[in-house]
Amino acid sequence: MTGADATLELGDLELELGGVIEDARLAYRTHGTLDGERSNAILFAHMYSGTPASLDSWIGVGRALDPARWFIVCPGQLGNGLSSSPSTTDGPFPELTIGDDVTVQHRLVAAHLGIERLELVLGFSMGAQQAFEWAVRFPDKVARLAVFAGLAQITPANELLVAAAAEALACGGPDQHAHFWAATGLSAELFRRQAWREAGFESVGDLVRRLLEEDFASLAAADLLAQLAKWRRADVARHAGGDLAAALDRISARTTVAAFSHDSWFPAADCRAEQELIGGSSFALIDSVWGHYAWGMTAAETAQIERIVGDLLAT
Amino acid sequence: MTGADATLELGDLELELGGVIEDARLAYRTHGTLDGERSNAILFAHMYSGTPASLDSWIGVGRALDPARWFIVCPGQLGNGLSSSPSTTDGPFPELTIGDDVTVQHRLVAAHLGIERLELVLGFSMGAQQAFEWAVRFPDKVARLAVFAGLAQITPANELLVAAAAEALACGGPDQHAHFWAATGLSAELFRRQAWREAGFESVGDLVRRLLEEDFASLAAADLLAQLAKWRRADVARHAGGDLAAALDRISARTTVAAFSHDSWFPAADCRAEQELIGGSSFALIDSVWGHYAWGMTAAETAQIERIVGDLLAT
Repeated sequence: MTGADATLELGDLELELGGVIEDARLAYRTHGTLDGERSNAILFAHMYSGTPASLDSWIGVGRALDPARWFIVCPGQLGNGLSSSPSTTDGPFPELTIGDDVTVQHRLVAAHLGIERLELVLGFSMGAQQAFEWAVRFPDKVARLAVFAGLAQITPANELLVAAAAEALACGGPDQHAHFWAATGLSAELFRRQAWREAGFESVGDLVRRLLEEDFASLAAADLLAQLAKWRRADVARHAGGDLAAALDRISARTTVAAFSHDSWFPAADCRAEQELIGGSSFALIDSVWGHYAWGMTAAETAQIERIVGDLLAT
Repeated sequence: MTGADATLELGDLELELGGVIEDARLAYRTHGTLDGERSNAILFAHMYSGTPASLDSWIGVGRALDPARWFIVCPGQLGNGLSSSPSTTDGPFPELTIGDDVTVQHRLVAAHLGIERLELVLGFSMGAQQAFEWAVRFPDKVARLAVFAGLAQITPANELLVAAAAEALACGGPDQHAHFWAATGLSAELFRRQAWREAGFESVGDLVRRLLEEDFASLAAADLLAQLAKWRRADVARHAGGDLAAALDRISARTTVAAFSHDSWFPAADCRAEQELIGGSSFALIDSVWGHYAWGMTAAETAQIERIVGDLLAT
């Protein structure tokens, strides 16, 4: 079940920071069918280094994201190699923001698909950044919000990690970038328990090679750098004059903020601090030694995440 | 109070991995006076990117390490830029181990200074690696052992960090290496609380610049890379056929293993796991949001560390 791929032609796209992408394109994938009232739509934003296809494993009949029940739109980030990206563009590529993603996603959802309200917007990591942006900017169009291991506003600690990842990639190439993620994205507990065996890896070397080196190897460095630069700029507070509390207070969606227990990239306390600024929201801690890679790594994490999504959709 | 500097000429030094350093030198600093029975000696090993002078701030009259009471020997690591190092050698420099450091330190202590037993061997981080090596290899010459935020055997998680640090330095130079440490060596809690203000920094940028960029800028990359390669090889288990428990069981020193509460480089659970293999040892957790930089960063950490040293010396 791979869904249906399509591309929305956006014409010349003016960006938040002043640049323009000529003949911009948004590549996206949908699952299921939009009902007559256009009242069963979900937007699922993908993470760093991903594509809409990266989300396929979360969608299936009988799952929380059931395409027999929901119409699930998975937009491709600008800079992901399928939507307009440095790798698909001749010459220099302008600077992006998460706001640009949501601008084009909104055009897709509202103008192109005719959907006035999304029943759920969700995402993990950079996907969570996009989901937060949706809920702050279009509060009356987002009924529910589920964010996993991501923040509405970049923290200094997260920014230092993103900056170092970008330096590793720009200077050392994909393997060094993969090694940076190996050193920072997993947890010491994973290694202490050799819990990587539970996911089918044979050794630490096998883990680093298959989970990280091979995953990043096929991606254009310029695209990843564009995504990292966008990540660093993530900040919903710019919609409220720099006031994060005021920005998050705009959210009217029924919200669950979920953190991963051993995630150094988005520590639970940072996620919790934002959640406490969102009225009526819930916080969930997903127990996993996989660090930032807890997103669906094994059945244990998948079950916890899927329960959160299912519970939210049931309310 | 800066102690007395000296250099021990070692002649041609055969290394554990088979290389030879011609006309090798061990630069060291001592504080205090060796008593007539040679029974008041302490060995204090320094950390990565340090020199014996890096330890001066821990030594003083009225302190736990009081030079009026103790004769404190601070040997310079091989590769530290003062002892034999890539930067002081023409041509290729051979591969080092922590074992090589302890071999030359033992020559200094036993043969040159005539000390049969050290009342205390202590160190932080790479200094802890050296201290562990001493206590495992020369158990009857180490009366007390105090190790801070360091491990006797490299873990896969620590090795991934060291490898990524080396890649950052080799490819990107000192600033990228400093940024890697900024991203991994501190804690998210430090930034969440802006606790860096308590140490006199004015902003995150100021912290990164003064604590990290400026600290690393003056050091030769080849020396740091030699130290990192040595760090990665640290493993006392090689003295017991690869059996870590058997190696640590050789320690007869009264031992305190101390970890820093928010240290991603040497997580407390990893330090604790080794401590539990050392008979009669104690574990101490030093509370600090400074991550791996808790080593004497503010008065609060200094007091906790000094109390551990003082308590151990009092027994």
